[in-house]
Amino acid sequence: MITSVNIPPENSIRVLDNQGWVGLLDHMGTESTICNAARVSFGKMKTELDENDIKLIKYLWTNKHTSPFEHVMFTFSVHCPIFVRSQWHRHRVWKFSEISRRYTEEELTFFVPDELREQAKNNRQASIKSTSLDQDGSCLKEIECHNEESLKLYNRLLDEGVCREQARGVLPQNMMTTFWGTIDLHNLLGFFQLRDSEHAQLEIRVYAQAMKKLIEPFVPNVMKIVNGTI
Amino acid sequence: MITSVNIPPENSIRVLDNQGWVGLLDHMGTESTICNAARVSFGKMKTELDENDIKLIKYLWTNKHTSPFEHVMFTFSVHCPIFVRSQWHRHRVWKFSEISRRYTEEELTFFVPDELREQAKNNRQASIKSTSLDQDGSCLKEIECHNEESLKLYNRLLDEGVCREQARGVLPQNMMTTFWGTIDLHNLLGFFQLRDSEHAQLEIRVYAQAMKKLIEPFVPNVMKIVNGTI
Amino acid sequence: MITSVNIPPENSIRVLDNQGWVGLLDHMGTESTICNAARVSFGKMKTELDENDIKLIKYLWTNKHTSPFEHVMFTFSVHCPIFVRSQWHRHRVWKFSEISRRYTEEELTFFVPDELREQAKNNRQASIKSTSLDQDGSCLKEIECHNEESLKLYNRLLDEGVCREQARGVLPQNMMTTFWGTIDLHNLLGFFQLRDSEHAQLEIRVYAQAMKKLIEPFVPNVMKIVNGTI
Amino acid sequence: MITSVNIPPENSIRVLDNQGWVGLLDHMGTESTICNAARVSFGKMKTELDENDIKLIKYLWTNKHTSPFEHVMFTFSVHCPIFVRSQWHRHRVWKFSEISRRYTEEELTFFVPDELREQAKNNRQASIKSTSLDQDGSCLKEIECHNEESLKLYNRLLDEGVCREQARGVLPQNMMTTFWGTIDLHNLLGFFQLRDSEHAQLEIRVYAQAMKKLIEPFVPNVMKIVNGTI
Repeated sequence: MITSVNIPPENSIRVLDNQGWVGLLDHMGTESTICNAARVSFGKMKTELDENDIKLIKYLWTNKHTSPFEHVMFTFSVHCPIFVRSQWHRHRVWKFSEISRRYTEEELTFFVPDELREQAKNNRQASIKSTSLDQDGSCLKEIECHNEESLKLYNRLLDEGVCREQARGVLPQNMMTTFWGTIDLHNLLGFFQLRDSEHAQLEIRVYAQAMKKLIEPFVPNVMKIVNGTI
Repeated sequence: MITSVNIPPENSIRVLDNQGWVGLLDHMGTESTICNAARVSFGKMKTELDENDIKLIKYLWTNKHTSPFEHVMFTFSVHCPIFVRSQWHRHRVWKFSEISRRYTEEELTFFVPDELREQAKNNRQASIKSTSLDQDGSCLKEIECHNEESLKLYNRLLDEGVCREQARGVLPQNMMTTFWGTIDLHNLLGFFQLRDSEHAQLEIRVYAQAMKKLIEPFVPNVMKIVNGTI
Repeated sequence: MITSVNIPPENSIRVLDNQGWVGLLDHMGTESTICNAARVSFGKMKTELDENDIKLIKYLWTNKHTSPFEHVMFTFSVHCPIFVRSQWHRHRVWKFSEISRRYTEEELTFFVPDELREQAKNNRQASIKSTSLDQDGSCLKEIECHNEESLKLYNRLLDEGVCREQARGVLPQNMMTTFWGTIDLHNLLGFFQLRDSEHAQLEIRVYAQAMKKLIEPFVPNVMKIVNGTI
Repeated sequence: MITSVNIPPENSIRVLDNQGWVGLLDHMGTESTICNAARVSFGKMKTELDENDIKLIKYLWTNKHTSPFEHVMFTFSVHCPIFVRSQWHRHRVWKFSEISRRYTEEELTFFVPDELREQAKNNRQASIKSTSLDQDGSCLKEIECHNEESLKLYNRLLDEGVCREQARGVLPQNMMTTFWGTIDLHNLLGFFQLRDSEHAQLEIRVYAQAMKKLIEPFVPNVMKIVNGTI
């Protein structure tokens, strides 16, 4: 059966006012994997996870012995605006497979913010929640119209015979894209530190927060350690 | 003296109808570096480059002994449309520093194709030169107008107080960006194979071709070997 | 239950005259994963693998579209001489966890070749099978004795109170080590090309050949394509 | 002129009681490179380095904005025992070219510790300075003899016709090796954190300390910031 890649997989979480989502497609390894990979150093293996192992994981994380975390892997599928995808691409250890707008013009959709934020004055890269901004919703309306007008122009260009790879230049950076990303737990935790942070743009932060929830059942103690709750 | 990063450096080549450019900012190593790195294997060093060394380089390249090429480095600055930058980002060994549209709204410019190409029918990701397409220039005109209208909307949103990181979503993928990229010669030659190829989009291919010219004075024999002329 | 890491796991293959082994500890993804990762480009997914998918895999491999292979992962445990491990370490994408001879002096064993090979005359890095070499077995006997004498000296140094990290310097490069290694299928196939090759040292080649057998049940068509049998 | 790779280059520092050395072969970029790479984010460039730039570097380092440091590169040549080299190989971003003992049997030398350290009791991977250990020097003498005996056996095996790649198995891990390594400043500083640390083995720590001295003239303020003196 052929389906669309733009449909969220079974184990997924919707974000950005239901416009985006991130799903967990596959995973390898458990918290026992981390402990046994660490114990390779001293030549030992253990079949069950116990309290001492949780202490071992905490020790490893606190002391930045991160290589044992690299044998645990996750594959996600992500549906997000391309300005979020561009930030994601900066993390070079991820293995990516993305929809190509040279190949297909189908299923084009565009992000419209749920709520606009104000430019921060004291931090050039930050934004702040605002109660006064865009009270009549005209800004959001304009963004939505602009998305639609851009798509119309794109389709007009295609109708004239213009190639997809050039025509896509008129599509706004609010365009949604879909990709698969595979990453080991060490680098995923590094991603969380940078992207589930108050310095990160909110639109990528919600993905990091959703991924934390998706992996939590597989590495519950790791997540507690990272969050400082044990 | 403070200058703009959007000005091409001295040693640079303009591409895309003078709208983009790529410049060579710095480099490390020569063809002697490659030969001596290879000779580390057998414990030898040589001060001058001679005919046998050129044969050695050809042998290394032909037999995929690519690690000696990794001690030669280049730093480029690149001014290109963001759809080109997104393709560039897929090459994960590059070290990137890019202008951030969360930080600054200054000097926004947009790419307009010099010439539109037709969608290829038999190869979904390809385009072909066309004499019949857009004969009255109305498509190009519409693209240009759309770029301008997008910038106006963006500025209107900023005037209303909307943060840069959200407002940029309306800017088209024709937006120009500027980045520094540092790469070793092994991976740069791999980039050339993929991006100076008939399968690559023309708008990135011209950057690959310009970079070949920029590095040629520093590794002339390597370029001849890669191009099959010796 | 605590066990030794130096015991071969259930799904493993012995090599080097039963002195070494490689085992498959875990894996993620199937040939469907490869096909669906490739189809992300055109926005499609498929639940079953059919004949067209095998053609797709062949097309991807032949045309070096290797990123879809990166979502399939394998974790191996390896028991090998350290001169083999040093060659393995040159493959920088592998994620490694290795026994540390700073931590433990237990279970030290040493490789003795099953059969000695002659130095090749025309290729400085090669060796050739020989019928005349070491006919009385005295060379092999000397190697074995030397391994044992080295271990005795090591133990004597430890008995004197010398730290493990310095004492290990007397142990020969025939010393066996054990490590876990995690790798994606794209880079594993690259490892096979370099290490299951007539240019590779036989002592690492047998590991590459064993790993091919270990992954074959999970990616049977990929292995046929790589081996040129379909 | 052909010379040996085992001779320290001009700009080098001897370590390990003059038995090892590390030399700086080449470099690219300055502290201005770091600042300008950071300023690419906000679209600016500056020609000279001033006090504010030093503050910028400190801000970048303190806040882990490490990508601007990746445009500064260094190539070292290193002569060290192979047990040190094995630790070095774990840093996967380094680009390595190493002498191959499959190719050449020339210039084999072996490390003998200047001073033996005691095994720490409370930390299994640590060692401590000792005044009582090996007072008559018999342990050091035995190590030296063992190195020599190992080389004699190796040469005897070669004389019998045994190939280098098998014969080397009898050589002890005190064997010296020589390699070139190229690395960016971000990852080099990470290497320093792990290897110029009290948790590191002293025999690799002296290399990290020597490299700090070698790069200090090129990035003096970076080194002050990293060392906490400004």
